[in-house]
Amino acid sequence: MIEPDFDKMGGLVPAIAQDFEGGEVLMLAFMNAEAWKRTLQTGIAHYWSRSRNTLWKKGESSGNMQEVKEIRIDCDSDCVLLKVHQLGGAACHTGYRSCFFTVIRGREAVVDGERVFDPKTKYGDR
Amino acid sequence: MIEPDFDKMGGLVPAIAQDFEGGEVLMLAFMNAEAWKRTLQTGIAHYWSRSRNTLWKKGESSGNMQEVKEIRIDCDSDCVLLKVHQLGGAACHTGYRSCFFTVIRGREAVVDGERVFDPKTKYGDR
Repeated sequence: MIEPDFDKMGGLVPAIAQDFEGGEVLMLAFMNAEAWKRTLQTGIAHYWSRSRNTLWKKGESSGNMQEVKEIRIDCDSDCVLLKVHQLGGAACHTGYRSCFFTVIRGREAVVDGERVFDPKTKYGDR
Repeated sequence: MIEPDFDKMGGLVPAIAQDFEGGEVLMLAFMNAEAWKRTLQTGIAHYWSRSRNTLWKKGESSGNMQEVKEIRIDCDSDCVLLKVHQLGGAACHTGYRSCFFTVIRGREAVVDGERVFDPKTKYGDR
């Protein structure tokens, strides 16, 4: 099985999730070898959660899983690009379609994104 | 000045470069605080080269610089998305438009990308 170079970053590679249809960059997460294997085997994006220190099947609690339509690997094999169909229409736990909903304008950070759901209704008021 | 959270990864954040016009993901690199500052000040993408351990003005030797059209930051401020106009039409040192010119098809890694220049003519035969 083809594998990214997990050695460069202590067992992890950055993985970009991009919307397969529209091309919007949805999020960046990290994969370890297990997440890579599960993603290839299942066709559903799996990552490694650095904050929870565990394998992370994206969307397992929210339902907003990512169906993987294409996997690309970069020229030095240390980064992965997943082209995905984003279930539920939003990748971000805040309810925005993309995690990159903040744009820098001069010295300001401005919200510029489409909010698909209210996180309170998805995860409860926490 | 707005800053990404450089503390999470020992002074670095991943930075995705995406083609401003077509939406193609061109490359992923890393930025430190200095690269971030220079990018904002100059409008030209600067990164931190982990292999050379130095500030890296992308395209300084090849001429293939990246004019930054938009900067986005993700929901937890630990990743940056640059929408760029790629001078010379190719981001990858191998001459491909995008560093992600390798697609995984089953158990095979297949080249699927547009080669814009021959690296021998750009950098010499090294």
